[in-house]
Amino acid sequence: VVKRIATDRPRQSRALLERGPRARSNKRALILYQATDHFGRNGYESTKWADVAAAAGLESASLYHYFASKRHLLYEIHAGALETDRWRFDRLTPRRRDFATALPLVLNGLFELSAHDMLRKRVSIAAEDLMSVPSSSEGAEIARRRARGLMSDNELAWATFLIRGMEQRAIPEADPRLLTRALLGLYTSIWEWYGPEDEMTLDELREFFVERLLALAGHGEVTATLEM
Amino acid sequence: VVKRIATDRPRQSRALLERGPRARSNKRALILYQATDHFGRNGYESTKWADVAAAAGLESASLYHYFASKRHLLYEIHAGALETDRWRFDRLTPRRRDFATALPLVLNGLFELSAHDMLRKRVSIAAEDLMSVPSSSEGAEIARRRARGLMSDNELAWATFLIRGMEQRAIPEADPRLLTRALLGLYTSIWEWYGPEDEMTLDELREFFVERLLALAGHGEVTATLEM
Repeated sequence: VVKRIATDRPRQSRALLERGPRARSNKRALILYQATDHFGRNGYESTKWADVAAAAGLESASLYHYFASKRHLLYEIHAGALETDRWRFDRLTPRRRDFATALPLVLNGLFELSAHDMLRKRVSIAAEDLMSVPSSSEGAEIARRRARGLMSDNELAWATFLIRGMEQRAIPEADPRLLTRALLGLYTSIWEWYGPEDEMTLDELREFFVERLLALAGHGEVTATLEM
Repeated sequence: VVKRIATDRPRQSRALLERGPRARSNKRALILYQATDHFGRNGYESTKWADVAAAAGLESASLYHYFASKRHLLYEIHAGALETDRWRFDRLTPRRRDFATALPLVLNGLFELSAHDMLRKRVSIAAEDLMSVPSSSEGAEIARRRARGLMSDNELAWATFLIRGMEQRAIPEADPRLLTRALLGLYTSIWEWYGPEDEMTLDELREFFVERLLALAGHGEVTATLEM
């Protein structure tokens, strides 16, 4: 018992020391969650700064302690979404896994989304339309550039993966950058009209689109199966 | 000669009578052209009301005599683009033409675009993100509803066309509404990144995407050829 108390004490005091930055980081995460919810449901344009502040339990003025502008929130959400996408992509496409197995896994994985994730997809679409517009606020501009970098990285990861598929003769030769844009373009377009409130289930949607994405890649012979 | 003069006279005086509304209609067309150019090149968000006015040779205040708001311009441009799309679609898909011939014609036709048409595609993308946001100005709201109606009509025309393809066994059975959204979603996504300044030619782009759109529709066996 004595020993346990002894080892716990420094941990507790470290937690106390970190309460400031950690609390701030938790608050930022909560704000981003609420902003995603509002932007996703009501549209980025229609959402007001005060709506996000109220949802996060803050005054409008206090929200500026965490984010510089609505645009800043938008880019941060997009960057976070891109990081999640990339993490999943890397997890499902290890080099030791052959392409013909990995492609259906990755495509099915793209539809493993919660209702909140779907709203985040919509926010990403709004963000992509504003990616080429430099922002005058420093915080927003840093987030915009981070998101731009992540978008390029993701495109490159996809193109590299598709080249592997071409080398393994699992899909026909094609311009990997164009094919990446076709696949991601079709996938992204889904979230322009599909949302958590749609009467079609996510499984039905996945079934239809995984098959079409495979056809688009020229992976016609391989059946789409989920073997996780 | 006497006869010709006699028939021409009433036409001339009608032209004089109509000069007012016709001049106004020409001016509106010019403004929409300039607005498309600015929105398409610099983005809808980044373009200012004064930029459009200046490009059309008007003071900012005078532009309000023609359009109620920037949003009004956006919806009018989108509605115009949808009308053009529909006209081309109907021309290439007469009922007497079998589906297997009509589909490649329609898909190739989607890429017969001038540099200005491509800019208009970008403007349509910006408009679609704002289609669900009612506008407080009457002019903009009427244009928004008109564009919404045209979008539904176009989707229905496509779905009906695809059903014809399924009945003729040219493409496999599928949910025609979903397939429409997949095809149009992939097609629309192209104009998010491709523009008149891209180093890839429009012909190269067309060749790649017509083949992929055919694969997406399940039209794999039929080769994409342009026989106009």
